[in-house]
Amino acid sequence: MNHKLNIVPFVSVDRMMKLVLHIGVERFLTELAGYIEEDFSRWDLFDKTPRVAAHSQDGVIELMPTSDGQLYGFKYVNGHPENTRSGRQTVTAFGVLADVGSGYPTLLTEMTILTALRTAATSAVAAKYLAPKGSTTMAIIGNGAQSEFQAIAFKALLGIRKLRLYDIDQAATKKCMRNLQGLGFEMVACGSAQEAVEGAHVITTVTADKKYATILTDNMVGSGVHLNAIGGDCPGKTELHRDILLRSDIFVEFTPQTRIEGEIQQLAADHPVVELWEVMAGKKPGRKDPSQITLFDSVGFAIEDFSALRYVRDQLAATGFYEELDLLADPDEPRDLFGMLLRAAKANAA
Amino acid sequence: MNHKLNIVPFVSVDRMMKLVLHIGVERFLTELAGYIEEDFSRWDLFDKTPRVAAHSQDGVIELMPTSDGQLYGFKYVNGHPENTRSGRQTVTAFGVLADVGSGYPTLLTEMTILTALRTAATSAVAAKYLAPKGSTTMAIIGNGAQSEFQAIAFKALLGIRKLRLYDIDQAATKKCMRNLQGLGFEMVACGSAQEAVEGAHVITTVTADKKYATILTDNMVGSGVHLNAIGGDCPGKTELHRDILLRSDIFVEFTPQTRIEGEIQQLAADHPVVELWEVMAGKKPGRKDPSQITLFDSVGFAIEDFSALRYVRDQLAATGFYEELDLLADPDEPRDLFGMLLRAAKANAA
Repeated sequence: MNHKLNIVPFVSVDRMMKLVLHIGVERFLTELAGYIEEDFSRWDLFDKTPRVAAHSQDGVIELMPTSDGQLYGFKYVNGHPENTRSGRQTVTAFGVLADVGSGYPTLLTEMTILTALRTAATSAVAAKYLAPKGSTTMAIIGNGAQSEFQAIAFKALLGIRKLRLYDIDQAATKKCMRNLQGLGFEMVACGSAQEAVEGAHVITTVTADKKYATILTDNMVGSGVHLNAIGGDCPGKTELHRDILLRSDIFVEFTPQTRIEGEIQQLAADHPVVELWEVMAGKKPGRKDPSQITLFDSVGFAIEDFSALRYVRDQLAATGFYEELDLLADPDEPRDLFGMLLRAAKANAA
Repeated sequence: MNHKLNIVPFVSVDRMMKLVLHIGVERFLTELAGYIEEDFSRWDLFDKTPRVAAHSQDGVIELMPTSDGQLYGFKYVNGHPENTRSGRQTVTAFGVLADVGSGYPTLLTEMTILTALRTAATSAVAAKYLAPKGSTTMAIIGNGAQSEFQAIAFKALLGIRKLRLYDIDQAATKKCMRNLQGLGFEMVACGSAQEAVEGAHVITTVTADKKYATILTDNMVGSGVHLNAIGGDCPGKTELHRDILLRSDIFVEFTPQTRIEGEIQQLAADHPVVELWEVMAGKKPGRKDPSQITLFDSVGFAIEDFSALRYVRDQLAATGFYEELDLLADPDEPRDLFGMLLRAAKANAA
């Protein structure tokens, strides 16, 4: 894309929004889902390093690296529940894609918006394999920052048209309905989680900041549904009653990580689960019968970020939504870093 | 420094050069050495995560994170020996400093130049405690990208005035002498490593890309010198003959890492070494007598990068050598990421 070796393309928040709007949210999610599916299908190629976390009293800062042997990607992401008090985001993120052959970064991008998109795209890809055939109705419990992205991804990939929305904060539900207006949904604001799940083929739980919450109790989940559980995503944070898990066939991203962070932290360490990539690669079945309860216990995995970085990189040349960042020192003679400094001094003086 | 929550200050290569030139290389190195000494003296506070490496046939990409509980820093660095063939640097780096309390990045900066500076500053700080009193003459074996920075750091912190330079490539020595001209050194180009070490109080070895090389043989190292060994810095790469190590008192940055990457990979896993911070904190002696051979077996450690990030951050407000990077999504309402996208669409259309 560029011939200046010092330059790394940079996608700012502003340019990411322009990119998403230019492509269209629905198409962006659909194409990104394709990249995720592609990467999950070649799972064995990936270096699956555990995330590197720095915990403190206030939250966590994590680096999530992975590589397929050709490209290397990592995401920096924080999680600080008290941040909203100072007008900051609980979670922000940025990421880098690099060439394994040279070690040179080839993309730096904001990933707060991109993570929201990849989370929704991953949920919808999983549901393609797991949700009952002909699903049209989804309950969304928790109508915060992720809810609209989930709705649009499920519309695009599964044909979901009816949304049953519930949040303990009615303002969140109103915000979600307002944002989704005119996008082809039939929406119902529900007074309880119990009401929201009535008649739903897919139940998405995406609540925040709860410790061992029980968003869904056992009696609320009938047969033949798909549970898309997004909100249980760190140690001590779960959303579903344990009895639901025991009645479900459970699908995860990367078992060692989900055992620690996912809903299944409530279960025995050897409770059987299927990794999503096994389904995508045709090694294990997804949904086997209409009455089955399937559960995607989603915590977010580095390969999804890798797919997202790859997708964004592939859009840059055609759309031009990036800046050129002077990030890498590029002396005329590689051994002459000090000389580069001296020449800069001369150039400044001139 | 700024009140826009989406903005992260960014120091490009160009701005880093301007910053270094504005402060002056010698003063920059001296002040940076002070930050390194300060951080090494409070060693126990730091989270000493091992570096996270992604190895490939062509090289390595590493993330080096650390934290003192208040600030979090990490460096991205690659090492690709074949890169020079395509006009690229063997090593490039960039880094991030963040606030542990909010998880928000507070600085993104190039670190190729900055790493060269922090490596030299660390060497000179170590030598302050280890080199013979009244050292005036330093041999530098290996006159590549790091050599000038070493010379200036040792001049600033130790009063080194005479340089005895040797490189297997005479052009490198010429480049080094040319770059250091007018900076107050008396310089001698030597025809061999043997010649270079004659009369030197400090011997700096900083050669590149050698597998188990022997830059110094045992007979070349007399009593009462300080060895500053920079070039042996990864598994399979060493510069000193094993017998020299056996006659030296060895000082390292972080023992578990140096056992794998440093000169001491040639020794038994329990060979006694002293960590530099112990000397700086007054827990262990540095040089004990004039005839002792001291060896600083330097491989580079995350805390040095942390000190460098901290130092650069502290210079920004006064010097203004940074750009504002729109890296973090900052919706008016934290839960309304999708609404931010919709408002951007309206703004674009207007």
